[in-house]
Amino acid sequence: MNTWKNNIRMVVPYVPGEQPKKAGVVKLNTNENPYPPAPGVKAALENFNTDSLRLYPDPDTKDLAEALAVYYELKYENVFVGVGSDDVLATAFMTFFNSKTPILFPDVSYSFYSVWAELFRIPYERPALDSEFKMNPKDYYRENGGIIFPNPNAPTSVCEPLDLIRDILDHNRDVVVIVDEAYIDFGGESAVPLIQEYDNLLVVQTFSKSRSMAGIRIGYAMGNRELIDAMKNVKFSFNSYTMNRFALDIGIEALKDKQYFEDNLAKIISTREEAVKELEKRGFTVLESKANFLFAQHSTHYAGDIFRFLKERNVYVRHFNLPRIDNYLRITVGTEEQMKKLYEELDNYK
Amino acid sequence: MNTWKNNIRMVVPYVPGEQPKKAGVVKLNTNENPYPPAPGVKAALENFNTDSLRLYPDPDTKDLAEALAVYYELKYENVFVGVGSDDVLATAFMTFFNSKTPILFPDVSYSFYSVWAELFRIPYERPALDSEFKMNPKDYYRENGGIIFPNPNAPTSVCEPLDLIRDILDHNRDVVVIVDEAYIDFGGESAVPLIQEYDNLLVVQTFSKSRSMAGIRIGYAMGNRELIDAMKNVKFSFNSYTMNRFALDIGIEALKDKQYFEDNLAKIISTREEAVKELEKRGFTVLESKANFLFAQHSTHYAGDIFRFLKERNVYVRHFNLPRIDNYLRITVGTEEQMKKLYEELDNYK
Repeated sequence: MNTWKNNIRMVVPYVPGEQPKKAGVVKLNTNENPYPPAPGVKAALENFNTDSLRLYPDPDTKDLAEALAVYYELKYENVFVGVGSDDVLATAFMTFFNSKTPILFPDVSYSFYSVWAELFRIPYERPALDSEFKMNPKDYYRENGGIIFPNPNAPTSVCEPLDLIRDILDHNRDVVVIVDEAYIDFGGESAVPLIQEYDNLLVVQTFSKSRSMAGIRIGYAMGNRELIDAMKNVKFSFNSYTMNRFALDIGIEALKDKQYFEDNLAKIISTREEAVKELEKRGFTVLESKANFLFAQHSTHYAGDIFRFLKERNVYVRHFNLPRIDNYLRITVGTEEQMKKLYEELDNYK
Repeated sequence: MNTWKNNIRMVVPYVPGEQPKKAGVVKLNTNENPYPPAPGVKAALENFNTDSLRLYPDPDTKDLAEALAVYYELKYENVFVGVGSDDVLATAFMTFFNSKTPILFPDVSYSFYSVWAELFRIPYERPALDSEFKMNPKDYYRENGGIIFPNPNAPTSVCEPLDLIRDILDHNRDVVVIVDEAYIDFGGESAVPLIQEYDNLLVVQTFSKSRSMAGIRIGYAMGNRELIDAMKNVKFSFNSYTMNRFALDIGIEALKDKQYFEDNLAKIISTREEAVKELEKRGFTVLESKANFLFAQHSTHYAGDIFRFLKERNVYVRHFNLPRIDNYLRITVGTEEQMKKLYEELDNYK
């Protein structure tokens, strides 16, 4: 064996949901939005100046960050933009979680958290959610090196109220607390207003779900200026030009059309509530969801078996072979038509 | 002071060249290509399916990596694709440079190297280039934790022959050696063929310079499968979906048009050789360049003064206030028209 291998950083990577290349798949496995981006995005693409691609993009992502700041009633210096919320969260882990005391996140939460902790060699502990997959704020009163949790939680879809977040913040003024709000637009209450009160709160959101733009990679963090500046310094120590010209242009466009955005959300929420009933009819218990997906468990059949059955019939949902949740399916809310196909195949399952 | 600040990773970030927003600037400061991307890129943009943006991109970047593999006579598993060569190099630093022994790179080289080393807390040493800014291979015979150098070098434009790279590799079989070939297409000899012989060699290139696509962010690394797999694991531990759908599409298009590519290079090389003469006429000494920029020193005037004079007249070049090179200007090779404007302003300089 060559000794150069000794100095390789060995890691167990995150495994994203499958992206099938074959046509005709009903894809309910990666929580994408079933509807296209706002019409303005198409117009921005048509007007895009290809020749400008020879020039570097704006490393400060100023126009997009300012558009986000206006949207959320913040200032430019309160917003950090990255290549999807994964890039933003990875940067936040590297920037803020440098204590020898373990960081805390729920035992059932976004499975990338432990991957980032391993990559950056950050110690961590995972307080258990209760039997209904709810957080107990008292689990976060102990000494720690930082806190992160998704709200609504992924993959459970459960949303915690702002009171709980405030309680956790009140007991943690000396570490950075990150609320990962990838799914907040589907009915949860955002922690963004708390940024004015808590200088150690970072809220992370994304264009990948509610804005139908997973394919273009835009995520963002909001927080007080010192947090954002520290993230910018780390970003500028890693890659100055992360956001390409095309993404910066169409990101601004996507923010403009509030009516399209709200109509899109209303359709998904309506389909979601309908889906709860349809799944319950078919023997599932479904957690109360404030996201664009459902987390469902069947009364008699093992989730892994249903998952494989559906996959053979070109209906892709997600199954996590992990403690506590291996008997659940995570089902993205698709179009009404896609959901009908799902119900049909579930009816075929013996 | 709040104690959460104690655990922030404090870093001194890289400062990229200025990206002026005002019109009319002759921009010769960030080594962009003065000509637009291949015509196929514009066509790909026009045919791009906006609706597909709702779906995640291919996390494996398979089609683009395969197109690159075909182009360089390698295999898919020998190619890693990232968000510009900075992203690729940062990932390589994190993946390969985990020894307690210092890594080595020349005292005058890409200034991002020391920034990455500081970010990831990698010890480093910087052997001095000789008085003509050439590398002495013997400086790299000593024990080390890895080696990286740009070839052609940035910001000097000096290109080393393959014999020197082979010599360094022969004396370093136990560490990863990275050759950063951002500017190789402008006349240097690439180390890519050595990948078959040296399993510890990683070669990094980019679409930002020779392919006129700095604005879209595509870089790539080539090396033996074990190196590439290790980088992929780190990437999948940081952000699965770094390359957006648009970049993946047009990257493939840009590779197709070899004639456009070669014509573009020929124009720049011709303008470069002309520029050497014009600068020499005006009292500059110019290093022999195999890049799309020149590194020039005036016989009587201080580089910083010329830099500021030119900037006031809307001609942007680059000046590094760093040891050994503070009396040099780095001048990107622009169009003939842009270069004429440069010569005119130099003639106005008293």
